[in-house]
Amino acid sequence: MERKKVISMAIIKRLPKYHRYLMELLINKVDSISSRQLGEKIGFTATQIRQDLNCFGYFGQQGFGYNVKELLKQISKILGLSEKYKMIIIGAGNIGQAIANHTRSQGLDFKLVGIFDINPKLIGLKIQDIKVIDIDELENFLKVTPTDIGIICVSEDNAQTVTDIMVKNGVKGIWNFAPVDLDVPEEIILENVNLIESLLTLSCLMNEMQYDELP
Amino acid sequence: MERKKVISMAIIKRLPKYHRYLMELLINKVDSISSRQLGEKIGFTATQIRQDLNCFGYFGQQGFGYNVKELLKQISKILGLSEKYKMIIIGAGNIGQAIANHTRSQGLDFKLVGIFDINPKLIGLKIQDIKVIDIDELENFLKVTPTDIGIICVSEDNAQTVTDIMVKNGVKGIWNFAPVDLDVPEEIILENVNLIESLLTLSCLMNEMQYDELP
Repeated sequence: MERKKVISMAIIKRLPKYHRYLMELLINKVDSISSRQLGEKIGFTATQIRQDLNCFGYFGQQGFGYNVKELLKQISKILGLSEKYKMIIIGAGNIGQAIANHTRSQGLDFKLVGIFDINPKLIGLKIQDIKVIDIDELENFLKVTPTDIGIICVSEDNAQTVTDIMVKNGVKGIWNFAPVDLDVPEEIILENVNLIESLLTLSCLMNEMQYDELP
Repeated sequence: MERKKVISMAIIKRLPKYHRYLMELLINKVDSISSRQLGEKIGFTATQIRQDLNCFGYFGQQGFGYNVKELLKQISKILGLSEKYKMIIIGAGNIGQAIANHTRSQGLDFKLVGIFDINPKLIGLKIQDIKVIDIDELENFLKVTPTDIGIICVSEDNAQTVTDIMVKNGVKGIWNFAPVDLDVPEEIILENVNLIESLLTLSCLMNEMQYDELP
């Protein structure tokens, strides 16, 4: 299938930031904001903000700026938040538990419907009111509970196996925390979070900075 | 201070990937590899690999390819791994514990020297053989234990306060997991991991894909 990008990847990467700042404005009861003010808060230029927002057909009102609530609603829709995507977490260790707690605490419309693990000590435990299920039950679970997003919090050795089971059973998006390049069909959306790569980027920049300081 | 970039950010972002694949090759006792073979594994073109590696003065030997051990040594040095950076984690909740376990398990040369929390229930607990210390002791700790990297695993409300204490006491790099834009001096390296932004990118792409599929 040929994928047509409706919105550029660069804008998609900026949208969550807009969402975060607009949520803040809403909480602080700000009704409207100009592109200049919004730009100052986020650290983008007013021109970039106008271009981004025009890009999905949202125009502020000349002299009044953007209506915060309307803009947030529009961005939430583009971000897929009105879809109430259902998620499962594979791996109930520290990272799995962190993700379960973190996604819940941010008040976003994702629904965690299952947590799976291979470790008998974790199976049956409750995390965020959801019982950890035996990984052997994953396929049966997916057959009766349509699930949109699978979150991989297992070791790199098991990541591909669970991915294959999920993809075969209708999961459309994989959020992968295992430090491995997963093989998925073209129509599956894959988002990787490689913590070690992030730490190495930090240490590389620190190291480079140190050499810059040499006379 | 004017910062001079010795290596471009694009290459820095690719280096951890080289490191990961070369570690795999070393474990599998592969002595040498051509740019074409390495490219096939990583998913870069042979030309890009030659350009990247030439960029920091490492040239393969015509007809023999790259010596895996030498190349890994060179890349590790650029990544700052030979510096044995000392790290502390602020916040011993799920994310803090996940980071403590994950960074240890990857066999890299970072040294975790302290974990701090504000919660009396966590203070005194041992994570990876390191006792969780009262956050009130952070400043005293840093005065006697020079620390390179501070890892922020606290809520957004407390992230800036602990960052300020760390920066004031010699920490040079901040690895930030709090969903907030931290304010740091120019010479401090800041690497953000915003999990919610990553999840929203995934759901945005899934949502877009869905609309693409409409007739």
